[in-house]
Amino acid sequence: MLTDTALSDLRALFGDRVSVAGPVLAEHGQSESLVTAGLPWAVVFPQATEDVAALARWSSRHLVPLIGWGAGTSLEGHALTLHGGVVVDFRDMASVLELRAEDRLVRVQPGITREALNRELRTTGLMFSVDPGANATLGGMAATRASGTTAVRYGTMRNNVRGLEVVMADGQVIKTGTGAPKSSAGYDLTALFVGSEGTLGLITELTLRLHGQPEAVMTAIAAFGSVGAAVDCVIATMQRGLSPARIEFLDTETVAACNAFSDLSLPPAPQLLVEFHGHPEGVAEDIRRFREVAEAHGAEGLQWAEKPEDRSRLWAARHAAYRAILASRPGAKAIVTDVCVPISALAEAVEETRADVAASGISGPILGHVGDGNFHAVLLVDPACARDVSTAKALAERMAERSLRLGGTITGEHGVGFGKLGLMPAEHGAALGVMGAVKRALDPLGLMNPGKLVPGLP
Amino acid sequence: MLTDTALSDLRALFGDRVSVAGPVLAEHGQSESLVTAGLPWAVVFPQATEDVAALARWSSRHLVPLIGWGAGTSLEGHALTLHGGVVVDFRDMASVLELRAEDRLVRVQPGITREALNRELRTTGLMFSVDPGANATLGGMAATRASGTTAVRYGTMRNNVRGLEVVMADGQVIKTGTGAPKSSAGYDLTALFVGSEGTLGLITELTLRLHGQPEAVMTAIAAFGSVGAAVDCVIATMQRGLSPARIEFLDTETVAACNAFSDLSLPPAPQLLVEFHGHPEGVAEDIRRFREVAEAHGAEGLQWAEKPEDRSRLWAARHAAYRAILASRPGAKAIVTDVCVPISALAEAVEETRADVAASGISGPILGHVGDGNFHAVLLVDPACARDVSTAKALAERMAERSLRLGGTITGEHGVGFGKLGLMPAEHGAALGVMGAVKRALDPLGLMNPGKLVPGLP
Repeated sequence: MLTDTALSDLRALFGDRVSVAGPVLAEHGQSESLVTAGLPWAVVFPQATEDVAALARWSSRHLVPLIGWGAGTSLEGHALTLHGGVVVDFRDMASVLELRAEDRLVRVQPGITREALNRELRTTGLMFSVDPGANATLGGMAATRASGTTAVRYGTMRNNVRGLEVVMADGQVIKTGTGAPKSSAGYDLTALFVGSEGTLGLITELTLRLHGQPEAVMTAIAAFGSVGAAVDCVIATMQRGLSPARIEFLDTETVAACNAFSDLSLPPAPQLLVEFHGHPEGVAEDIRRFREVAEAHGAEGLQWAEKPEDRSRLWAARHAAYRAILASRPGAKAIVTDVCVPISALAEAVEETRADVAASGISGPILGHVGDGNFHAVLLVDPACARDVSTAKALAERMAERSLRLGGTITGEHGVGFGKLGLMPAEHGAALGVMGAVKRALDPLGLMNPGKLVPGLP
Repeated sequence: MLTDTALSDLRALFGDRVSVAGPVLAEHGQSESLVTAGLPWAVVFPQATEDVAALARWSSRHLVPLIGWGAGTSLEGHALTLHGGVVVDFRDMASVLELRAEDRLVRVQPGITREALNRELRTTGLMFSVDPGANATLGGMAATRASGTTAVRYGTMRNNVRGLEVVMADGQVIKTGTGAPKSSAGYDLTALFVGSEGTLGLITELTLRLHGQPEAVMTAIAAFGSVGAAVDCVIATMQRGLSPARIEFLDTETVAACNAFSDLSLPPAPQLLVEFHGHPEGVAEDIRRFREVAEAHGAEGLQWAEKPEDRSRLWAARHAAYRAILASRPGAKAIVTDVCVPISALAEAVEETRADVAASGISGPILGHVGDGNFHAVLLVDPACARDVSTAKALAERMAERSLRLGGTITGEHGVGFGKLGLMPAEHGAALGVMGAVKRALDPLGLMNPGKLVPGLP
């Protein structure tokens, strides 16, 4: 709990932009996942970098943890309050600050969402490519090193954040990166903060890379005789040197859920949803080659959607897949797993996971950004049923262990938060000590989102 | 100097793989640039990671600095001995350890050179893309976050190192990264070590991304009426959404030097050397579009080289440009500058630099990887002439300041070493304190390549 002095100091700084109202605390104490924690002591709504800097100085003075908050869509409890503290909600710092079309850069505040940003870009011929599905904030996406359907072509947040402004634990404001496309001038602090989950500082500004809206876009969907055939087709596509903008896998159960939810009539079989971007001549050839590869892997009923409305319909269905899967079992909650393996191990990883899920007795449709080796099982559980929940958690843990055994990672894009904290030693070994040393060096009082990302540290 | 105990301990560990012979020390006390420093106290040739770990433990025990050494091609004194110490020459750790063709990954030791690696890959259909011109080692390229002609399409070392093995200052061996194409599992230590110039640890193994050798390659060269027209053509090319694999600028003086050195007969005018990679259909359309853009910018005599021997000839000339420029003034040494600016500022940066060089009275041909906004002036000086040298250094400093003023960086690809140490505060401001904190946390005794990258630290 905040001391009276701490609270009155906070009110002196933020006035009515600090809230200790029950509903506000409750809203900032929940998440989309089953991961739960305590309530924050207060929620603050900064309006400028200087507000966040003042908050950090306040936090150091009163030894109160700070937890950043974007859209609350994270799945591993990143923004939940573990050891008490104040949640910093960036909803009032959600502007586009500067568009530099010639340099394909945009400078934004952390609270702007991906969809809002792309709405603002619509008439510029440019787009922000990273698309995690959820309408997350850019600050949150940077903090978790998010990616999504388009990463296979345009990269993850790692590749699309050019620079940051960060408020450090002591209130110092730093800038990382420059406007130049590359630099060799010292440690790559931008990369250090991207994926640091608010444990090293709070991001108050981002300079993002934009890409040209593609001149030609073609989307295809193809059904395969087995999961293995679909996954092998992905491997062959990448090895053929084709560079799809997206290549998504949906297993039969996911397809069934999407058909029901989004009023589609896709054949009940494993599907690949593929998109190519480029100039019309290049895309036409990409398509011809993909068809060859797909048919060599037994694809049936390969359909191309060239018209924007047909494409939108397919991708809307894909984006709704998570909700579709949830809707397939009313009352259920989902534990969404997230592993990423080397492409060569993808078929094995997916097949083993499928068999494991099937043997568990719970429902767990599989889908993913397979061009990157990244896939999810959406494990449906009755949140009131302890056996369901523990079965799902054990499945999720086995998925992560399987991923590590196959040379992959425990999280391709969702991040660590505290949901995956226990798996960090297995992935990193001694390197985790280096992460701990960096954390202690930059946040010596342990006040920046404590209990997340680095196990064993406050 | 090494104490007798330190030296005898070192000999006990390394036997005849430690040298204190004068010529060996001298060879490891020089560089390709005018940057100079002292001689190392000894040179060690490790053969395995465990050797390097033992060396780090020895270094901590005797408080002796360690300086990594690859091919000695760096330009800012990265591998020179500033505060005494032992040079770690990786020439005996130069093997390909594992090729994983399906995953397009290769695991190598740090001492292998770029050319040796690509020779080993020649028959695999794969290639390692980063090409800084010099036949540097992969360890050195990672340590300086090198890039070169192909970065505009395939990225720099930042994008092409998937994981590392690093020996830390205390001798601990850590692994960063996984075999998966992406991960959100904690701090991006791979990115932290890439570009850290041996100041945080010594890289003993690298897992590198490979790319498919392109099916079709077309190279073009075009002459422009002015530097501005050539640079504007680059900007327009990138904005048109074309994605050249390389797009190099050579000013008139560079062209003249290349003509003389490589027996070419290019017209004496600013030139762009462009290459497209892809499938034949895509490349044909890329070419058609580039020709349109180039001709709209007044390009003359645009020539395509499709035959491998014609392409090789042009690129060999480009790669020999540095030697060609040196040869244009016998006895001269070069100070090679390296700035990188936002594309929108490229014409201004190049034009101002040209005028500044012209006014200085010394010769300084300009060339660069302009698709990334990165260019170099090769300032030719008589090393015995103090006025030449000081004029060139002042020019180089003004170039860096100009780059910062235009939103760019003091070094696009050469790194900081100690040649650019004095410019770091201007680029990074308070962020430099964060770099210092990271350095102190991971190398508390200040023994890893001291005096480099972070000013004011031992």
